[in-house]
Amino acid sequence: MMRVKLTVAYDGTAYHGWQIQKNGNTIEGELNRHLSALLQEEIQVIGASRTDAGVHALCNVAVFDTDTRMPAGKISYALNQRLPEDIRIQDSRRVADDFHPRKCESIKTYEYKILRGTFPMPTERLYSHFIYTPLHVEWMREAAAYLEGKHDFKSFCSENSQAESTVRTIYRIELVEEGSMLKIRISGNGFLYNMVRILAGTLVECGKGRFPAERIQDILEARDRQAAGPTLPPQGLTLVAYRFL
Amino acid sequence: MMRVKLTVAYDGTAYHGWQIQKNGNTIEGELNRHLSALLQEEIQVIGASRTDAGVHALCNVAVFDTDTRMPAGKISYALNQRLPEDIRIQDSRRVADDFHPRKCESIKTYEYKILRGTFPMPTERLYSHFIYTPLHVEWMREAAAYLEGKHDFKSFCSENSQAESTVRTIYRIELVEEGSMLKIRISGNGFLYNMVRILAGTLVECGKGRFPAERIQDILEARDRQAAGPTLPPQGLTLVAYRFL
Repeated sequence: MMRVKLTVAYDGTAYHGWQIQKNGNTIEGELNRHLSALLQEEIQVIGASRTDAGVHALCNVAVFDTDTRMPAGKISYALNQRLPEDIRIQDSRRVADDFHPRKCESIKTYEYKILRGTFPMPTERLYSHFIYTPLHVEWMREAAAYLEGKHDFKSFCSENSQAESTVRTIYRIELVEEGSMLKIRISGNGFLYNMVRILAGTLVECGKGRFPAERIQDILEARDRQAAGPTLPPQGLTLVAYRFL
Repeated sequence: MMRVKLTVAYDGTAYHGWQIQKNGNTIEGELNRHLSALLQEEIQVIGASRTDAGVHALCNVAVFDTDTRMPAGKISYALNQRLPEDIRIQDSRRVADDFHPRKCESIKTYEYKILRGTFPMPTERLYSHFIYTPLHVEWMREAAAYLEGKHDFKSFCSENSQAESTVRTIYRIELVEEGSMLKIRISGNGFLYNMVRILAGTLVECGKGRFPAERIQDILEARDRQAAGPTLPPQGLTLVAYRFL
């Protein structure tokens, strides 16, 4: 038996998220099905980030155990031959038998892309959220500074979350402008359910001038989802980096 | 009567190109249908660049004549309400009654995107061409220099072209690297059928070391499609700028 770690990239547009469901295609379901067919044994992957429907990833992580004699490094090539073209394994390698991606300390980086302008751009529509109202990016940067660090992010978590603790650490929030595209890059040790989309939605409220930057402190203290801004739609969100410590 | 000029952005993935066909959706067909419904008269647009199936545009141009009393600048907003989300008018304005986008001198810029790496990246698959073999970008730049200027591009034109003259001027070819993405930006006064995709395919042959840069001169002189490199697939190509002189 060996444990294999996959680095998985996908376009989430056509999927009901990572986690297996009764109805609808999922990334986990596709991986289990094609790995089982490839390796001729029943495979069940363990995912690192269970991304929502419509969310993308450049580098999510999955591990599984197998008795195959295929070298771990070759599994990426063989599996990519079978997977649909909106899922591509970027790397496969053997890891320690007790490596568990959700029980390891890690730094995850998500990017939320916002396209600003008079009209949406069709070639960006699947990978960004369009906003017509002008955004004051400096106000968003001021607000983002209040979010960095270790905080109770209960206000930034959808009500139906089952997380035991809502304390997380955000290492860094960067706002990068590339023409009319604004990228919000958030690195942290873990994220609650919908947290990045609510953080992005709250920063947008600050950028529109509806929330002053200092309001972030009140929102954090409120520990109430109603205090924060809206949950932005999933297609703007991509998991862009994943590092185990 | 007034003549209206539209700046049209589209994701070409789902279309059989710009030009109306008996079978299959086209950009021109969608514009005619939705404009006719909006303005309550039979509208037929004249397109500037008749892009191929699968090719994208940020700023193609179409003009049409109308008797509407709707101000030209409002047509973009009203038409976008009706168009599918993979087509978006970026601008609408009145132009001179004799303005014809294919009879005007213009500078068009196309971008061909090539993703280099071990495995394709799903979120880039609809807007780039994936190449596994390493490319020497400096060799491609040397080759590109031979293509700039006024030349007979018959070798870079698909056989079934109906163009009378195959002489065109390329003002500039830039190769821009952004991480693993390589962008080939080509500006010119006009392009023959499949010309940008054949130019890109020929530059890739140079980047792989299969053609030395000086070979470009021989290819131009041959005036024979067989002398040039392959036609790269359409999804890597986007019309990114259009300027009338």
